[in-house]
Amino acid sequence: MKKRVQSNSSKLKIIPLGGLEQIGMNITAFEYEDCIVVVDCGLSFPEDDMLGIDLVIPDVTYLKDNLEKVKAFVITHGHEDHIGALPYVLKDIPVPIYATKLTIGIIENKLREHGLERVVKRKVVKFGQHVNLGQFRIEFIKTNHSIVDAAALAIYSPAGIVVHTGDFKVDYTPVFGDAIDLQRFGEIGKKGVLALMCDSTNAERPGFTPSERTVGVTFDHIFMDHTNTRIIIATFASNVDRVRQIINSAYKYGRKVVVEGRSMVSIIETASSLGYLNIPDNTLIDIEQLKNYPDEKTVLITTGSQGESMAALSRMANGMHKKVTIGPQDTVIFSSHPIPGNEKAVSNVINMLYAKGADVIFQDTHVSGHACQEEIKLIYSLVKPKYAIPVHGEYRHLKAQAALVRELGYDKDNIFILQSGEVLELDDHSAEITGKVPVGDIFVDGLGVGDVGNVVLRDRQRLAEDGIMIVVIGLDSYNNLIVAGPEIVSRGFVYVKEADELLDEARQILEDALDDCMSKKITDWGKIKTVVKDTAGDFVC
Amino acid sequence: MKKRVQSNSSKLKIIPLGGLEQIGMNITAFEYEDCIVVVDCGLSFPEDDMLGIDLVIPDVTYLKDNLEKVKAFVITHGHEDHIGALPYVLKDIPVPIYATKLTIGIIENKLREHGLERVVKRKVVKFGQHVNLGQFRIEFIKTNHSIVDAAALAIYSPAGIVVHTGDFKVDYTPVFGDAIDLQRFGEIGKKGVLALMCDSTNAERPGFTPSERTVGVTFDHIFMDHTNTRIIIATFASNVDRVRQIINSAYKYGRKVVVEGRSMVSIIETASSLGYLNIPDNTLIDIEQLKNYPDEKTVLITTGSQGESMAALSRMANGMHKKVTIGPQDTVIFSSHPIPGNEKAVSNVINMLYAKGADVIFQDTHVSGHACQEEIKLIYSLVKPKYAIPVHGEYRHLKAQAALVRELGYDKDNIFILQSGEVLELDDHSAEITGKVPVGDIFVDGLGVGDVGNVVLRDRQRLAEDGIMIVVIGLDSYNNLIVAGPEIVSRGFVYVKEADELLDEARQILEDALDDCMSKKITDWGKIKTVVKDTAGDFVC
Repeated sequence: MKKRVQSNSSKLKIIPLGGLEQIGMNITAFEYEDCIVVVDCGLSFPEDDMLGIDLVIPDVTYLKDNLEKVKAFVITHGHEDHIGALPYVLKDIPVPIYATKLTIGIIENKLREHGLERVVKRKVVKFGQHVNLGQFRIEFIKTNHSIVDAAALAIYSPAGIVVHTGDFKVDYTPVFGDAIDLQRFGEIGKKGVLALMCDSTNAERPGFTPSERTVGVTFDHIFMDHTNTRIIIATFASNVDRVRQIINSAYKYGRKVVVEGRSMVSIIETASSLGYLNIPDNTLIDIEQLKNYPDEKTVLITTGSQGESMAALSRMANGMHKKVTIGPQDTVIFSSHPIPGNEKAVSNVINMLYAKGADVIFQDTHVSGHACQEEIKLIYSLVKPKYAIPVHGEYRHLKAQAALVRELGYDKDNIFILQSGEVLELDDHSAEITGKVPVGDIFVDGLGVGDVGNVVLRDRQRLAEDGIMIVVIGLDSYNNLIVAGPEIVSRGFVYVKEADELLDEARQILEDALDDCMSKKITDWGKIKTVVKDTAGDFVC
Repeated sequence: MKKRVQSNSSKLKIIPLGGLEQIGMNITAFEYEDCIVVVDCGLSFPEDDMLGIDLVIPDVTYLKDNLEKVKAFVITHGHEDHIGALPYVLKDIPVPIYATKLTIGIIENKLREHGLERVVKRKVVKFGQHVNLGQFRIEFIKTNHSIVDAAALAIYSPAGIVVHTGDFKVDYTPVFGDAIDLQRFGEIGKKGVLALMCDSTNAERPGFTPSERTVGVTFDHIFMDHTNTRIIIATFASNVDRVRQIINSAYKYGRKVVVEGRSMVSIIETASSLGYLNIPDNTLIDIEQLKNYPDEKTVLITTGSQGESMAALSRMANGMHKKVTIGPQDTVIFSSHPIPGNEKAVSNVINMLYAKGADVIFQDTHVSGHACQEEIKLIYSLVKPKYAIPVHGEYRHLKAQAALVRELGYDKDNIFILQSGEVLELDDHSAEITGKVPVGDIFVDGLGVGDVGNVVLRDRQRLAEDGIMIVVIGLDSYNNLIVAGPEIVSRGFVYVKEADELLDEARQILEDALDDCMSKKITDWGKIKTVVKDTAGDFVC
């Protein structure tokens, strides 16, 4: 009996380990007594000043330190910012993964790349199904998003229920599968929900995000208006519904479809094999077969909608693609919106395509995968949580959701904008931030994880801005003689072949300074180094 | 008589020396026989991959090679992308400058900074006034833009009239001075215009750009709604009309105004002293006096609306500003729209402001300074040129203007999308591209002009991505002995303090490789270098 009472008096801890100071790197620990369940395990892409960094993953020291408590990763959907860190983190936190079928399929591709497919346990969960994980029970609820099989989670703990939306939108007329299970959100809401963690990405945008189906209508119109050109459509590799709609329009207008770009091919294969994408017979062709069909009878679906320099569309645009040459016979559609930071890269690709004579279309060919203000209010009105915890978005977006929640009548003391690492302890009586656990960005540079830190990045920044000048001298300190040099080696400073004079002069000035040291019998290496550094520094600044 | 006939049979050459492959760096030579007039002389800001570059200026080799022909620079308005290269280019092309009063005022500030104010001739031109420059006559026509005193140019040559709009919009109700002189565009059009060079920046946007005055109305509403906070407004330093409207609202609501940010202070001083900005008495106060007034009685107008890291607003947002501390007592207004490429930087500043508790407003507080589609059509309908030459914008924008012009009934052979360096020769009978002159980007890095080229940039890119590892060895080649090292110095590679083992191992491997060389009596410096490079390379990759 005592244990029961004690158990009921424990609080639930919600500990975001990433994702609250940036877009991406979503990972949140839910802890109740001796039990931790981790929701999502995403990466983020490097900021502009993270030179040479490929990806950023979360610091999971807290999970390592509490490894015996960690029961599982529960994943909401298959986007990189929710699954991308798994292969790195699983090496330290080898626990099972629970997710819906397509999400598991995409994760398995990743595990295979990292040689982890045999060691990591994973389990496919259906919508409506509950999973028992220690003191937690997790229910997967159907939502809509820009990837199929996205789930919200109802996290049942002895301290109460938390609903986590994941990334979501409300699509009453989805292209595949069911609309978001609003009834279940209402039903759980009626039970009494402790806290709602809701997607904030579009919380600054009024209204409702349009249905994915509206994009299909636009495709049909474009296909109808462009019967004389090849059509090339760039979109996000993981948006299987978008691909489905393109294939539908292509089929309707008698065109063959080529899929190009490694990540696109991989996801489409996974989605097809799992039954998420039925492609009419004789519609897909190999890129090698393109030449056998007239341009106006083909469609290419490709990666590169964000202007990524190595993606297929960028290579087509700059003439580096081996199999596709862009010209006036092409209509290129950007079925995407630039992610903040990519605007200029996208614009560069558009300019190159125009310069090659192609027509470019980028209007009405994309809808967001995230809930706008009216959808957020709808979810709050169904779930009616005691506490609101805006998640997924930059700080400005979390603030915007908080403002919406205030409009719904919530007291500001019941709204928590958390920082990564903060420990929110809550139960039906109270919620408060009670501590902080270590969090941070781990940089992945090539295959190395974590061996590039801030000092290295600062050096790279300096090297990038000014280049480097290296002075090499051989000194015979016994006889106080310069035996070699000074030689000057530089990279990224001036173009050496055209700067002979400048470098000769630098050498001369350094030689004079060193001779001066020698004649003064200065033999202390530190002192000589300072003289060389200051002399060279004064000369070039 | 013969000369006269010959003169009439000459063609006009239009030679853009920059500005057609990018936003910025606008400079165009107009050449007729022995006479060249240059319109604008702008800079552009570096692309992301131009590491460490501060500005980019045009290569004016063509003007240098034809120096005796060059009569003058004629400047349309005082924005950096139209005047910024003057101080650099004038050193090689010392000819007079013609522009309107405020434009000359802003140019004079620049000349002063570069110590050129005594050597460069300049002349203020009034709207409607004509300037004779050799065989050319140039008329300045009043337009509207996001800086006061912007002009279009009618360029009269024996081969015909070219109208160049500069950057412009149609504002029927400007905040200061007259609306664009549409009558004069019509009148010149009636005379018969050979070519129109028209601003394309907003050619993808339907409709009409709203009047600058609409922003003033928004300011009034915001001031009315925020009577309890300090108001901080970030905008472009050069938008004097915007500043005027902020001061008007401040005055109306009894607030004192502080202007902060070096470029903002400089332009406001220039504009005030030239009579373009009348500030009510006792409205402007010094930043030092801020503390003498309650927050809700003050307004700060500041630079940094593009998220520029060193600008005043960014320093306020990240807590580095010495005199302004952001907090819940602040409402910050972005009276600007992010220039493509700056979106993320702006968003970062917004997040920091929110995190400090400030309210942030960025809607309806800005209008563009460029003509949208209906305005472009209006100008074409007034000027009715024989040839259309879209200018000012990325390639996609030039293409969009070309599409508009086609809609107006122009034949595609009469529309010229030029590339920088192309020579368009035209008269009333024909227009064709007849040649190409050298053009290019000159990088300004610190105070150096042109000593950073592509090789240096490529090196900087590599240094930025991977850092550098330097191996220093002292060899006694006579006795085949290593006398010093191998020592390893690295920057931007790994954090040395935590990579002792790695570097020790590298040193050991290098020592072994060198010993091997020595024992094989290899003394050729080139061979040893290759061994060291390959050994180190294999080890770290």
